[in-house]
Amino acid sequence: VGQAFARLLSKKQKAYPFRIVAIHTLRHGTAYESGEFGPTAGSIDEFLEKARPEIVCELTPLNPESGEPAITYIQKAFERGAHVVTANKGPIAFAFHDLEQSALQMGVQFRFESTCMDGAPVFNKVRNNLPGVSVLGFTGVLNSTSKVVLAALRRGATWEDGIREAQSMGIAEADPSYDLEGWDSAAKTAALANVLMDARTTPLQVERKGIAGVTPQQMQALAAERKTIALVSRGERLDHGVRLSVQPEILEETNLLGVIQGTSNLLLLHTDLMGTVGTVSIDPGVDQTAYGVFSDTVDIARSI
Amino acid sequence: VGQAFARLLSKKQKAYPFRIVAIHTLRHGTAYESGEFGPTAGSIDEFLEKARPEIVCELTPLNPESGEPAITYIQKAFERGAHVVTANKGPIAFAFHDLEQSALQMGVQFRFESTCMDGAPVFNKVRNNLPGVSVLGFTGVLNSTSKVVLAALRRGATWEDGIREAQSMGIAEADPSYDLEGWDSAAKTAALANVLMDARTTPLQVERKGIAGVTPQQMQALAAERKTIALVSRGERLDHGVRLSVQPEILEETNLLGVIQGTSNLLLLHTDLMGTVGTVSIDPGVDQTAYGVFSDTVDIARSI
Repeated sequence: VGQAFARLLSKKQKAYPFRIVAIHTLRHGTAYESGEFGPTAGSIDEFLEKARPEIVCELTPLNPESGEPAITYIQKAFERGAHVVTANKGPIAFAFHDLEQSALQMGVQFRFESTCMDGAPVFNKVRNNLPGVSVLGFTGVLNSTSKVVLAALRRGATWEDGIREAQSMGIAEADPSYDLEGWDSAAKTAALANVLMDARTTPLQVERKGIAGVTPQQMQALAAERKTIALVSRGERLDHGVRLSVQPEILEETNLLGVIQGTSNLLLLHTDLMGTVGTVSIDPGVDQTAYGVFSDTVDIARSI
Repeated sequence: VGQAFARLLSKKQKAYPFRIVAIHTLRHGTAYESGEFGPTAGSIDEFLEKARPEIVCELTPLNPESGEPAITYIQKAFERGAHVVTANKGPIAFAFHDLEQSALQMGVQFRFESTCMDGAPVFNKVRNNLPGVSVLGFTGVLNSTSKVVLAALRRGATWEDGIREAQSMGIAEADPSYDLEGWDSAAKTAALANVLMDARTTPLQVERKGIAGVTPQQMQALAAERKTIALVSRGERLDHGVRLSVQPEILEETNLLGVIQGTSNLLLLHTDLMGTVGTVSIDPGVDQTAYGVFSDTVDIARSI
């Protein structure tokens, strides 16, 4: 994502003249304005002190159980008065309320469009285009690995085939259990609820059931009845708090939630004034995730 | 739409303190700030002169063959330095380029979110959330009457049944030919192309074929093969100009374009940086159209 983002910044340099003041990586070292990569900075504090960025784009790998170290990095950026864009769902799923409070206190902006739908407008859509609207709930199919595995089972392939296919597409980890047990969807569900419904929750509070119990036989029997299964994320605002769930749902095969395949995503927002309105993203990849980071960066630049 | 918009303004008065300075209607007369409806103003000029609005919300009925009288009304509002919101697709389909130039010259804003998807974010999404993106094309299913009639034929009902059903839902006119011959879709296609692709076209330039030739027998035969038909709008940017079409397309019944039913709408934008990203709106009605006008009005207020 970082490399795709750098390419995009370069391509759009004329219309959007952002300047990269420093790049900090775990494996390739740290570069400051001189341009050459040198040894990795000793700490994030040292890096931020030398780099003095106006906007920090945080793209570290996710620790799915805590959202760290991204949460700490983002807090440190806020403490120095930098705006932050993250493509990392962990901080939004685990610590959105605290991070938002820190940003508010420091008078800086915080953006995270790429965290739930690979860069398609969701959070910025609600912020910029749905004034006065209250999000009452949402329904989404947001996990790619589950879609690929379920489609494989449906056409008679094995679990192993499905997982290998997802891995060869670059969307499933060596250990795909994070996706298949619903944790990825739960993190996105918690993130959406935190931002859109002020839920102050974490993925641990999401009722969660993955697709591990689905068998090839079941998928093929459902196909014969023109039905299918999708791993569906749901959020609902209650009188007190929210109800959040991730679970496999049996659907008519023509159900909108059931026809979204591969890395494509769908998120429907249930609102008070605009009814049910949604975003769909078809086959997004790393370039789209990078675009989400870019659009967030522009959104911040417009607001300052 | 006007009444729903007035209710919405009243409901959101506290957070969005817009003031209605005057209301001009064909049937119910004209009201100025005093509040009472009196005789209808003699002309749009007389009305604008007395009302002196900052923002004009234009919600007149569509003349599908010309976009008038809305185009003239909007021009007159611009000439007086008023911003304009319209829910009327005619002006956008027939005269967007001229209107936009007039708005630019006068330094005023022009918004029209409700014209193609009943208020769901499309134009404001591109404007506010997709910076730097070029729209290369689009694919949409945007006409409700066609969806209702095709669904009726598919389940074995007659053309007359389908049309009556659409009429009872309040979405088809007494003469439904405007919808069924594809003119409504062509107007939306031209409007989308004018705004998103600078096409400077009109509905007359859209290759257009309606659903009038589809028979109940054909729809049922397709259903047996797990196929369906949808009236699809397509736009494509060419080296010189654009190619625009509206036609019935035979689709797998699980195709995303085929599963959108009733008044629900789907529009996919094909872009350079964000791949294919779309908006879906489920069962919108007059309250959502009014919300689109409201969101446009807020968007203008934010920019001035």
